[in-house]
Amino acid sequence: MSDTETTHVHETVRAAAAAAPACAGASPSHRAGALTAVADALETERAALVATADAETSLGPARLNGELSRTAFQLRLFADEVRTGALFDARLDRPAPEWPPGPRPDLRRYRTALGPVLVFAASNFPFAFSVAGGDTASAWAAGCPVVVKAHPGHPELSRRTAAVVRRALAEAEAPQGMFALIEGEQAGVEALRHPALAAAAFTGSQRGGLALARIAAERGTPIPFYGELGSVNPVVVTPGAARARSEEIAEGYVGSVTQGAGQFCTNPGLLFVPRAAEALVDGIATRLRGVPGAPMLGGWIADGYAAGARRLAKLPGVRTVVRPDGPEEAGAPGPRLLAMELAAFTAAGTAATEECFGPLGLVVTYDDVAALGEAVAALPGQLTASLHAEPSEAAGLGALAGALAARAGRLLWNQWPTGVSVTHAMQHGGPFPATTAPTTTSVGTAALERFLRPVAYQSCPPQLLPPPLRDDNPWGVPQRVSG
Amino acid sequence: MSDTETTHVHETVRAAAAAAPACAGASPSHRAGALTAVADALETERAALVATADAETSLGPARLNGELSRTAFQLRLFADEVRTGALFDARLDRPAPEWPPGPRPDLRRYRTALGPVLVFAASNFPFAFSVAGGDTASAWAAGCPVVVKAHPGHPELSRRTAAVVRRALAEAEAPQGMFALIEGEQAGVEALRHPALAAAAFTGSQRGGLALARIAAERGTPIPFYGELGSVNPVVVTPGAARARSEEIAEGYVGSVTQGAGQFCTNPGLLFVPRAAEALVDGIATRLRGVPGAPMLGGWIADGYAAGARRLAKLPGVRTVVRPDGPEEAGAPGPRLLAMELAAFTAAGTAATEECFGPLGLVVTYDDVAALGEAVAALPGQLTASLHAEPSEAAGLGALAGALAARAGRLLWNQWPTGVSVTHAMQHGGPFPATTAPTTTSVGTAALERFLRPVAYQSCPPQLLPPPLRDDNPWGVPQRVSG
Repeated sequence: MSDTETTHVHETVRAAAAAAPACAGASPSHRAGALTAVADALETERAALVATADAETSLGPARLNGELSRTAFQLRLFADEVRTGALFDARLDRPAPEWPPGPRPDLRRYRTALGPVLVFAASNFPFAFSVAGGDTASAWAAGCPVVVKAHPGHPELSRRTAAVVRRALAEAEAPQGMFALIEGEQAGVEALRHPALAAAAFTGSQRGGLALARIAAERGTPIPFYGELGSVNPVVVTPGAARARSEEIAEGYVGSVTQGAGQFCTNPGLLFVPRAAEALVDGIATRLRGVPGAPMLGGWIADGYAAGARRLAKLPGVRTVVRPDGPEEAGAPGPRLLAMELAAFTAAGTAATEECFGPLGLVVTYDDVAALGEAVAALPGQLTASLHAEPSEAAGLGALAGALAARAGRLLWNQWPTGVSVTHAMQHGGPFPATTAPTTTSVGTAALERFLRPVAYQSCPPQLLPPPLRDDNPWGVPQRVSG
Repeated sequence: MSDTETTHVHETVRAAAAAAPACAGASPSHRAGALTAVADALETERAALVATADAETSLGPARLNGELSRTAFQLRLFADEVRTGALFDARLDRPAPEWPPGPRPDLRRYRTALGPVLVFAASNFPFAFSVAGGDTASAWAAGCPVVVKAHPGHPELSRRTAAVVRRALAEAEAPQGMFALIEGEQAGVEALRHPALAAAAFTGSQRGGLALARIAAERGTPIPFYGELGSVNPVVVTPGAARARSEEIAEGYVGSVTQGAGQFCTNPGLLFVPRAAEALVDGIATRLRGVPGAPMLGGWIADGYAAGARRLAKLPGVRTVVRPDGPEEAGAPGPRLLAMELAAFTAAGTAATEECFGPLGLVVTYDDVAALGEAVAALPGQLTASLHAEPSEAAGLGALAGALAARAGRLLWNQWPTGVSVTHAMQHGGPFPATTAPTTTSVGTAALERFLRPVAYQSCPPQLLPPPLRDDNPWGVPQRVSG
């Protein structure tokens, strides 16, 4: 990186830091107005943005239009959440002379913005996890300025989106410096090392995320690093479900594992089925063979998919059930299905549970549901885990469901993990290595909690209190008084 | 460490891991019962525990009795907090077919226990931040088993407290393995590296905390590390306050800076006073000269205090105002006062803001309150910051108060930072290096949030839902339904 580029990155982070007090001090309605303005602007520019996105990502207009709608909805949901004022978690303890073990002073605590946030955009959601995506929206909602490091997979879309965002924020009279875009790997690392940065969020590969997490931890002033690194999202099909709904499950699985060319962090890459459920595996294989190859986000993604599939196929005990053949594999690889027995899977350890980003399923056959508990407990942390079972089996699945929930951020029943709904109760996270921060989520309104820091005021006069802690409560936020 | 000792540590962590599901699944009333039982048992054994503590720490029966009461109170406050069920943050989103951008499934999210927690006990609070102290209580309240690494400064007290805890937990029929004590630095490191560990909490020195934080970050599975590393807790006295209440402020300052031989992480080691406030500095110096030397927690603490004081005294522009002399310095060093001008302080950078653990104050004289903003903004992260000012000045202090609050976890007005009240609204934390986790607190009921992990259940039958997420809500926890 040239000196000029380095200087540009430093100036960008400094400008974000300069904007931090204004962003943190912005009222809920001001913040919500900015979020809503960006949502409106994205929809106004929909046609041009989707066309640019499609040219760069090959994801197709239907998916991209849906994703843009989701992104706008997400911004508005955060706007609604900010308006409730719940994020401030305002707690007012009145003076209590009799409080043990000594008189309690007037204490007021709220959560305020952490400061400038660096967002590393993802490749696979060019809207929803990119420039104006979930990390950006949640950091803004928390009152933080955001510097986005563009993903090189869609540079032109990133610039266009950034222009839309800048214009919308200016029209909403949002604080200057609340948003900036930088490009290039080295620029991202420079920004991550900048002393004024307060936190970083990342969605992407395990390797990339861990490298950045290490940089964040090794700074002179270490900062929170929220990395969502993906997982294989195990699915367990019970004997009862395999018997009762073999076709339905095969259909659903193939739809989920090939959706978006398998380029989802919630892609169900690992499927446990009863050994006797040959019809289910056949049904999956037949359907997969009928799914045409689809262009992936870029050559580097397709290469990674091919390499990952080769690596898995060579593990002891793995047999290839479905593989793409012929010329289509070059630009638009087709889906793959591998299979192995539980004993071989267990023996392979984490080599069998590494994410292979793309439309690949690894079927693991088991004899007895009770024997799955150990394998599940040994799984690395997962974003999701799913159970496909009959209602009559539910009562007997408590232990397995508990084991799955202990390794994952979300447990699904007879549903597929792709398609993450943006709601208050969504949890998109999980134990390491699904994420680097298991106490947090990167989807849903709770995502903004990542960018808040509590501060208490002891016996301070009203003039010095932030609005959420004042008795006259000018922002009308919920206040928890004396417990 | 011998193989036997290593094996013991590993077995201890494994036992905690085995207890994790039972602890996480314990009902609020069961958890609260265990916390209360420990509180009761500590008070029953008060006389013996305080005597042992005094022999090992020289803190004196008055302080130690108070601290034991505080520790018991803290356990009961967490019990009360657990009973409210608020910690589960239960969110139930009902299915919503019209939800954009696609039908919303039944989604239920709560926060469950993170898993086994390692607590590194502190030296300076042999009850409140040790075996059954705040970190232990908050981890238990969150539903986590705890392994405490005893502080070598009070080994016998640690063992005695552990025996009291074990007995109380057994009588309360708490899950086996919910508590264990280990001893020795290497044992602590082994436990921190154990794959089954989920989080660690630490209160102590910056050097020790940073070394442990690095180990936690470099594990194969990195885990959250909550380190409270102390700070110098700046205090600003305004010209108005210095004129109006010189005697009162001198009295208060000397009481706070020498309390407990200055062995508090909230000790006000840095005092900004107007240059004209010679009477204030004289008043402090006179009083400090009258404070006799006091025994410190151990020889290693007294040595660190002497070395830190020598280092500060040698900084350019520092003059020594009060220093202990004579024979009392050996076992029971007296208080110290240093002074320098704002320009020299600024020039010294972080060399002038390193914590010197003990009864030492560094006075920095300034000409104009407006000039303090820059120095305050350059401060490392602090647990607390205090303003001593006249009510008539409040309106003009917004910028300075904002700058102080931006660098600290708690802002005080005309009060002293020592004596941290245990309440709902307390915040004991702050930007790095005051803590390694600026989004958290280690005192007050919010401390339990450090040990919780969100999990969502999508469309799961009631038999597989944890109690806080069930429609019949058997634990009676607050549920936020559809936002």
